[in-house]
Amino acid sequence: MIIKPPTAAILIIGNEILSGRTQDVNIRFIAERLVARGIVLTEVRVVRDEERAIIDAVHTLSKACDMVFTTGGIGPTHDDITADCMAKAFGMPLEINAEAKEMMASYCQMRGVPLNEGRLRMARIPKGATLIKNKVSAAPGFQTKNVYVLAGVPNIMRDMFDTIEASLPQGETIYSHSVISDLREGDIALELEDIQHQFPNVDIGSYPSMIDGKPSLSLVMRGSDPKALGQALERVVDMVKSQGKKPEIERDTRIV
Amino acid sequence: MIIKPPTAAILIIGNEILSGRTQDVNIRFIAERLVARGIVLTEVRVVRDEERAIIDAVHTLSKACDMVFTTGGIGPTHDDITADCMAKAFGMPLEINAEAKEMMASYCQMRGVPLNEGRLRMARIPKGATLIKNKVSAAPGFQTKNVYVLAGVPNIMRDMFDTIEASLPQGETIYSHSVISDLREGDIALELEDIQHQFPNVDIGSYPSMIDGKPSLSLVMRGSDPKALGQALERVVDMVKSQGKKPEIERDTRIV
Repeated sequence: MIIKPPTAAILIIGNEILSGRTQDVNIRFIAERLVARGIVLTEVRVVRDEERAIIDAVHTLSKACDMVFTTGGIGPTHDDITADCMAKAFGMPLEINAEAKEMMASYCQMRGVPLNEGRLRMARIPKGATLIKNKVSAAPGFQTKNVYVLAGVPNIMRDMFDTIEASLPQGETIYSHSVISDLREGDIALELEDIQHQFPNVDIGSYPSMIDGKPSLSLVMRGSDPKALGQALERVVDMVKSQGKKPEIERDTRIV
Repeated sequence: MIIKPPTAAILIIGNEILSGRTQDVNIRFIAERLVARGIVLTEVRVVRDEERAIIDAVHTLSKACDMVFTTGGIGPTHDDITADCMAKAFGMPLEINAEAKEMMASYCQMRGVPLNEGRLRMARIPKGATLIKNKVSAAPGFQTKNVYVLAGVPNIMRDMFDTIEASLPQGETIYSHSVISDLREGDIALELEDIQHQFPNVDIGSYPSMIDGKPSLSLVMRGSDPKALGQALERVVDMVKSQGKKPEIERDTRIV
């Protein structure tokens, strides 16, 4: 019996990624955490800080996947329009959330900074949404429908993800084995395809790279059926050996 | 007169990004190069190695933007299906390209490896497409319609981008000034919004971060009108000073 795993998408909101100013590191963090829960990340989109682009992407992704994670655009400045867009996307009023305001007020008092109109923008939350707290800054993210709205600053985003992680659905455990060698992809492409066809519920990937100017090839097998995975691993190891190479095997590494 | 800049999208093809196995570095590289040519990157999508997902994304993005750059899926293994998908997306036959085959043959001879059926897969190119050569590996990318199909391995992708760069459209030069201080975003959010409204053709972004546990704020102004940009910079510097802070100014940094 094949159980369909829960699916997710990520929507990265921010001109700074699209201008090349900022190297995104949020995709990989969320991706790793989702795999660890057996959730399949099916798509990522990065859009500009523009209402139409954000709303269209939220509509599409929230219908296509079981859950969507957004990052970015929830600060106090004019380019932070994610909360406004979520309210519009789902036809909800955007209002000052009493609990969020209280959290902002305590934080401001502790830091000796004013709870001014700019900071109050961060307490504007679509009506009925669930707050997502974080210990780094007071400003919360929120969940509305199947969309989790998280910060863009990596350490704040990570703390918010920690907050919601246990509430996410749990899919079947995904295991990963890697076989690393100095083979060239072109030497084993067809034989690897045969192995893939023989094990349709094992996801076999081939990732070449150069390490110190020498070719390195990682053959990665991923899946939730340990028996099939073990058999596929055996076939791949035999294939590498038959090419006169010494395979380095990493078992149950989940993603790495 | 406002000239509409050329627009671009990136389509990253590969399960390894969506599983968290691999940290993407191609988005930032391409984004920086596009900005340097005055091309606006409007959207990025990352999709799995699945025909339907790839074709749908190519259709949407190639209509929405002046040009699309894809990365990944052009190697010799079964999970490399980008060429097949491009041929299907645009209704073109996929065939062994004589020039690509010749390039592969020379490379194999030089390296002393066989030009086998697996490697020949990399010479399969949609009919009528223009090859995109690279000096790192022999296997070419290609351009078909407004889509540039590049490798996923970063150093090969970069070499391919170097090959096509001069042929891309040239938009107006985009300049960037940054004003860095230890201000908190919340203290200047509304005043910054006023400045943004006053200079609608300057794109003002606010990027907070923590450096050694202390808050740092980069206020970035970008645009192609040097006069408006200079005036906006002056206003932002005055704003930072009026908060009792010493602004650090980086001029004409283009993105950084």
